[in-house]
Amino acid sequence: MSDIGVTVKKNEDFSEWYTEVILKSGLADYAPIKGCMIIREDAYAMWEKIQEVLNKKIRETGHRNVYFPMFIPEGFLKQESAHFAGFVPEVAWVTHGGDTPLEEKLAVRPTSETIMYATFAKWIRSWRDLPLKINQWCNIVRWETKATKLFLRTREFLWQEGHTAHATSEEAEKEIMYVLSEYRDIMENYLAIPVLVGLKSESEKFAGALYTTALEAIMPDGKALQMGTSHNLGQNFAKVFDINFIGEDEKEHKVWQTSWGITTRLIGAVVMVHGDDKGLVLPPKIAPVQVVIVPIPYKGADPNAIKSKAKEIADKLRAKGITVVLDDRDEYTPGWKFNQWELKGVPVRIEIGPRDLKQQQVTVARRDTYQKTAVKEEEAICAVETLLVEIQHNLFAKARISLEEKTTTVQSYHDFKKVLTEKGGFIKAAWCGNSICEKKIKDETGTTIRVKPFEKEEPATTCVYCKEKAKETVYFARSY
Amino acid sequence: MSDIGVTVKKNEDFSEWYTEVILKSGLADYAPIKGCMIIREDAYAMWEKIQEVLNKKIRETGHRNVYFPMFIPEGFLKQESAHFAGFVPEVAWVTHGGDTPLEEKLAVRPTSETIMYATFAKWIRSWRDLPLKINQWCNIVRWETKATKLFLRTREFLWQEGHTAHATSEEAEKEIMYVLSEYRDIMENYLAIPVLVGLKSESEKFAGALYTTALEAIMPDGKALQMGTSHNLGQNFAKVFDINFIGEDEKEHKVWQTSWGITTRLIGAVVMVHGDDKGLVLPPKIAPVQVVIVPIPYKGADPNAIKSKAKEIADKLRAKGITVVLDDRDEYTPGWKFNQWELKGVPVRIEIGPRDLKQQQVTVARRDTYQKTAVKEEEAICAVETLLVEIQHNLFAKARISLEEKTTTVQSYHDFKKVLTEKGGFIKAAWCGNSICEKKIKDETGTTIRVKPFEKEEPATTCVYCKEKAKETVYFARSY
Repeated sequence: MSDIGVTVKKNEDFSEWYTEVILKSGLADYAPIKGCMIIREDAYAMWEKIQEVLNKKIRETGHRNVYFPMFIPEGFLKQESAHFAGFVPEVAWVTHGGDTPLEEKLAVRPTSETIMYATFAKWIRSWRDLPLKINQWCNIVRWETKATKLFLRTREFLWQEGHTAHATSEEAEKEIMYVLSEYRDIMENYLAIPVLVGLKSESEKFAGALYTTALEAIMPDGKALQMGTSHNLGQNFAKVFDINFIGEDEKEHKVWQTSWGITTRLIGAVVMVHGDDKGLVLPPKIAPVQVVIVPIPYKGADPNAIKSKAKEIADKLRAKGITVVLDDRDEYTPGWKFNQWELKGVPVRIEIGPRDLKQQQVTVARRDTYQKTAVKEEEAICAVETLLVEIQHNLFAKARISLEEKTTTVQSYHDFKKVLTEKGGFIKAAWCGNSICEKKIKDETGTTIRVKPFEKEEPATTCVYCKEKAKETVYFARSY
Repeated sequence: MSDIGVTVKKNEDFSEWYTEVILKSGLADYAPIKGCMIIREDAYAMWEKIQEVLNKKIRETGHRNVYFPMFIPEGFLKQESAHFAGFVPEVAWVTHGGDTPLEEKLAVRPTSETIMYATFAKWIRSWRDLPLKINQWCNIVRWETKATKLFLRTREFLWQEGHTAHATSEEAEKEIMYVLSEYRDIMENYLAIPVLVGLKSESEKFAGALYTTALEAIMPDGKALQMGTSHNLGQNFAKVFDINFIGEDEKEHKVWQTSWGITTRLIGAVVMVHGDDKGLVLPPKIAPVQVVIVPIPYKGADPNAIKSKAKEIADKLRAKGITVVLDDRDEYTPGWKFNQWELKGVPVRIEIGPRDLKQQQVTVARRDTYQKTAVKEEEAICAVETLLVEIQHNLFAKARISLEEKTTTVQSYHDFKKVLTEKGGFIKAAWCGNSICEKKIKDETGTTIRVKPFEKEEPATTCVYCKEKAKETVYFARSY
């Protein structure tokens, strides 16, 4: 890899391009320990933005943040058997404290249902204690054996896990749909990534859940990426952990539960969906830097006049709540700076040179289209504000077109395989509902059912695999 | 313990009182795993407030948040020998991933110097890459064998660790003092806890540091609590991890480093310092709820008129940025609510009854003094704003008096021991600077040198222990 600039083209070697963009833009780095990564400054700032947005939403609806221990005794994890079976192959185990072997080995949390719900049983006594709605932002460990992929597959990652307990099944269902809609808002209106929303099939659901709902996006290489999940746990854990309450009817009931999460993989999705051959392209709403101002000194021109104009504009933009970097470092050339900030995906660049100064204008360049426009100085602030909104919309619109282009409805298994080979993406097909067909399709094509959409369409055809009567239309894809 | 209300008096059994207040107020709970705790809603909200304040400060001075892996290979931890020796007895070790034994066991981070600095060596090449100023908010594990004390001694806790690398020793020193002053601002002006600031002695410094500076507070039982530290690492780690840069002089140099942290133990300090026999007393600036409004319905009075007035006032306070809970639950009596919110330490309570309504007033009660005042409705918002400021100041002023009362200057070792037995607290005494005296004092009295103040006073006497010529005046205390 050369020192600066992306050397691989996105449409030539997508996987290489992805890694190179992340490393060179400084979003992340490999850690000096196998399977782990360092989330660097800009990526962490994007994660903090996601935290800020989600925290605001869920606080308004009565959820509160907490922090539970990261160590889960093996005995706890074992209590819900499907849950244990699902997670145990990937658990990292702590076996010693100092020199002393532990009496019971401790799982580093792969998820926190068991440790939390053992405590819910203590906290919940009466209908007055319900609903209980908590959330935690924390690190999670799953001992992946497959190759590391920055943000998408690492042994440790960051996430948010919401856990709620309700008096009725209806309330739990409402919560699940509420969370999905807030997640969708974050993904589509902040990350500018359109998603499909629906149910997971039985074989793809969360270990221990009644059912799992998910949001799925399509990546430029035609593979799907699970962006978030919201699980209906029913009373599965309530039974195992005895989470009972006295209802208004004065009788004892078990609670109904949900859990839901999004992870730092969302940042990987942003890189994949929006990035181009010059590097990252960040949606303005989550960009750590929204505008960079680069003064262009010329021989003979007064550098201080240019710098002071740049500072004036920076201050005005900041007063509007826009995040601005004024890059007036003398040790780098404007050209070097353009490349650097393009690599980092900053949505808008403002250039101010002697000519701009003379004509009382600035040059505004947008990252998504590379379009450059001269704007009168007095209109600059307003123009930048508008442009940020426009870039946000444009990125989403482009991603939406890509989702549409990468979604193909097929009637036959022959077409299914043909589409998969030729373009990948979501393959919309009728399915009989039988997990045997699902399994065979997976074994033969490597695709899984990503979602069963909530809005049922009358399936026009018979099952794409067995040709028996179809039950519903679902979306298949290969996935990360 | 009775179901509601604190049963132990603060000045009768301080330790029992502390635990009971935390559990009953709902700040925290014991986790179903030995040595660990659950940070509950209100405590986590206080931690988020601390995060918000510190993040704002350090961002303005160019520090940025990141996230490094929690697992540190044993080989890394071993590289700086003093550092390793200091931490290894308390390390939790991961030895297995799934069923597979790991080739090298992994420490769950007790602190992140080693894993970060191995990477710094890669990131830092030239003077242009300096200063490097990063910070991370994360969980930390130290396998304590002593009894658990909520917030103060648990095997896992949350903290913030700042790590910086500089071109010169002077810059590193400046950073250390900058951090101390921001920490002090948080402790004194947000947590309302006065602190002593100074150097740690050689024997109390951070394992691997050149020297350690610290902020120390005194608790009501006369024991000191270390509130935060800021270490000058000199070039110790730079040598071990080869963190070199080409200077402006085009020669190779080693960086100068600092690291610094505050932890969730600060919440324990707030409980201890400000709490009273009725529960928590929270400084308004970090209280998760600043004002609670309790409508007082009476027989014959119109409950809706009272509730709607309460809502109107709540909205007006919220518009001023004040966090308000309107507790209009019908299932609890006003008396029960008063107790509950006093237990939770809410700084201001507003009561609105039929009489208040009639006289166009509200009753305002402050948590710190229990004073109740009737305030004209049109003055209520302004009065509450003023009161919040006043409570904040009052809590600090009281804590300051307590610090002064608990600080005693002694001339002789006889007085030293007498003061320690009679009242504890900080004992200010002259010291020869010899670690043998320090060790003997520790062995004989259980006290350590908490800080050596930055501003040197001419020591009036000879060393309190050996009676040789004194080098400086220092603060001794027993501590948590």
